[in-house]
Amino acid sequence: MARAFNFSAGPALIPEPVIREAQDALWELEGTGMGLLEISHRSKAFEAVMDRARDRLTRLLRLSPDQEILFLHGGARTQFFQVPMNLLRGARATYFDTGVWSAGAIEEAARFGTVDVPFSSKSTGYDHVPRDGSWGELPAGTRYLHYTANNTVVGTEYDYVPTVKDAWLIADASSNILSRDLDGSKFDLLYAGAQKNLGPAGVTLVVIRKTLLDAADRDLPSMLRYDIHAAKKSLYNTPATFAIYVVERMCAWIESQGGVAAIEDRNARKSARLYAAIDQSPLFQGKVRPDSRSRMNVTFTTGTPELDAKFVAEANINGLLGLKGHSSVGGLRASLYNAQPEEAVEVLVGFLADFAARNSVGKA
Amino acid sequence: MARAFNFSAGPALIPEPVIREAQDALWELEGTGMGLLEISHRSKAFEAVMDRARDRLTRLLRLSPDQEILFLHGGARTQFFQVPMNLLRGARATYFDTGVWSAGAIEEAARFGTVDVPFSSKSTGYDHVPRDGSWGELPAGTRYLHYTANNTVVGTEYDYVPTVKDAWLIADASSNILSRDLDGSKFDLLYAGAQKNLGPAGVTLVVIRKTLLDAADRDLPSMLRYDIHAAKKSLYNTPATFAIYVVERMCAWIESQGGVAAIEDRNARKSARLYAAIDQSPLFQGKVRPDSRSRMNVTFTTGTPELDAKFVAEANINGLLGLKGHSSVGGLRASLYNAQPEEAVEVLVGFLADFAARNSVGKA
Repeated sequence: MARAFNFSAGPALIPEPVIREAQDALWELEGTGMGLLEISHRSKAFEAVMDRARDRLTRLLRLSPDQEILFLHGGARTQFFQVPMNLLRGARATYFDTGVWSAGAIEEAARFGTVDVPFSSKSTGYDHVPRDGSWGELPAGTRYLHYTANNTVVGTEYDYVPTVKDAWLIADASSNILSRDLDGSKFDLLYAGAQKNLGPAGVTLVVIRKTLLDAADRDLPSMLRYDIHAAKKSLYNTPATFAIYVVERMCAWIESQGGVAAIEDRNARKSARLYAAIDQSPLFQGKVRPDSRSRMNVTFTTGTPELDAKFVAEANINGLLGLKGHSSVGGLRASLYNAQPEEAVEVLVGFLADFAARNSVGKA
Repeated sequence: MARAFNFSAGPALIPEPVIREAQDALWELEGTGMGLLEISHRSKAFEAVMDRARDRLTRLLRLSPDQEILFLHGGARTQFFQVPMNLLRGARATYFDTGVWSAGAIEEAARFGTVDVPFSSKSTGYDHVPRDGSWGELPAGTRYLHYTANNTVVGTEYDYVPTVKDAWLIADASSNILSRDLDGSKFDLLYAGAQKNLGPAGVTLVVIRKTLLDAADRDLPSMLRYDIHAAKKSLYNTPATFAIYVVERMCAWIESQGGVAAIEDRNARKSARLYAAIDQSPLFQGKVRPDSRSRMNVTFTTGTPELDAKFVAEANINGLLGLKGHSSVGGLRASLYNAQPEEAVEVLVGFLADFAARNSVGKA
């Protein structure tokens, strides 16, 4: 079987030129005589990879000099507790509850202080995110606001950065980082597991403002201290060298495509095309409120679990993979991360029309 | 430059057939239509990779059915605190201090209970490990004994498994796992960062006896709970899929070489050949006590920092890379992990003789 059209929610598609570069580097990294998996993380050649990755991320995320870029272990889920362990410290923080990942972050934060949740869409199946400012004032003494920028399971996304005063702004951007233009300098802490838009599973990007390094708790196991990882330039222990290399190459690929603005245009076109096809279909229907639709994870359904399952099975046979919805919510999901070509969306739209014609029972 | 002879201490050499397999899998994993970085960790194809990895590790480490194999994030250094956070719980434990990694583990453990250190070779530059039983009885109430099976910085190694009664046996085997025959069923908890003998940086193997899952603290952030990772078969969050794939292929390669016993024979020959060359040299001298010499990390010196530096520089020119000692101790170090071919040792031995002939000033 050749490479198919891959709509996985993550780990997800990598641009083919980046895969080719990674293949070459496994054998030998840039004239060093050593393969990428075999070279010291403290070698000049690998430190150069890390420096390039930081430079590219600084440009692409529009970071300012008072922010540090860290490459950590443990996935975004480790940040769920590492953030409050370092920064909540018995005080209070505000979290928005927009899905399973937000809820997980809230559960961990509650171990370390008081968590206010002024917004939750749980009662309507997490079908929307809040409008900016709709949560009113944050309680006095709030250390930070935490939100999940894109929700992979239900398919919602913030199309803005929340306005926050007198508190730090913290976001989990795992599934939409670098997919849309963002003023990264607004964030006091921004984190993202790599395995959607950044690269392979196994490395987590953390952008943290330097003032937070000083404000963080230091009476913690060393591996959990942001200040140590910052002081050691993410070489306190052996980092996930392969994954960091791929992140650097992903950033180079984004720049080669015209940068985040060009990528965002393409992402807007891809998702608009698919949502339009769903809205106009006699069979398929979207699963979230139109004003909260994610560009990254388009969720939809035929209306019945049986027909959804038939759709997934037929799609697989036709080389359209990864379209099954998350097990907790069912239905269908097409993930359209940066590396997803427009051609794949066209093929999917064609398949939707074909399937609807053969299976239409009238939209509910 | 072609691939050189690579003596790095870690990340370290991978067998070339395994690199070739990883290159192929990046493009497409085993007929799935998706690349290794792009396939869901919950897909049947990837779960099969994990199952094969567990099966091979069970055979190679001679594990028993009451032990669980976990693939975690964070490197061995995360285990320095995760072990006592889960298992010490205010009680006492015994640690042997045989180098910088032991000392790091002791420092983290002290946060969670009382740490007894009946053996330390710090005062003699960590030049040896204890003889079995030399530490006498463990204090009453000791929950576990922790030791570092091989010490990469100084180049010492235990050639036995410590005998322990009435306490759990815990080892950091990061740098010698699968390099010598080991009755893995003896260990209540065994951990290893992958980047020496197991595969790429970014995944940590933890073998834990099931009774310890029940005994561990549960009032912890979920990512730090062994019992959750065990219940979820290391899929609680997205694991380091690429690294786990390579671990599985490394295990297959070991089996193709005749298993751990055959690998151990080869490792014994390689290190004996190099130590003999050092001992017989008019210039070079070993850095640790002969009865504690590591098969994995052979440390030696010309006797002066200047000549050591000259050696490293000339070795690099001759395609012998990674021979500089750890920055904290200086000198020279040749790492001879499983993937190091005997040919590389022969070339190194020849270079030692040549360098000694050109630079001999008489051994101190």
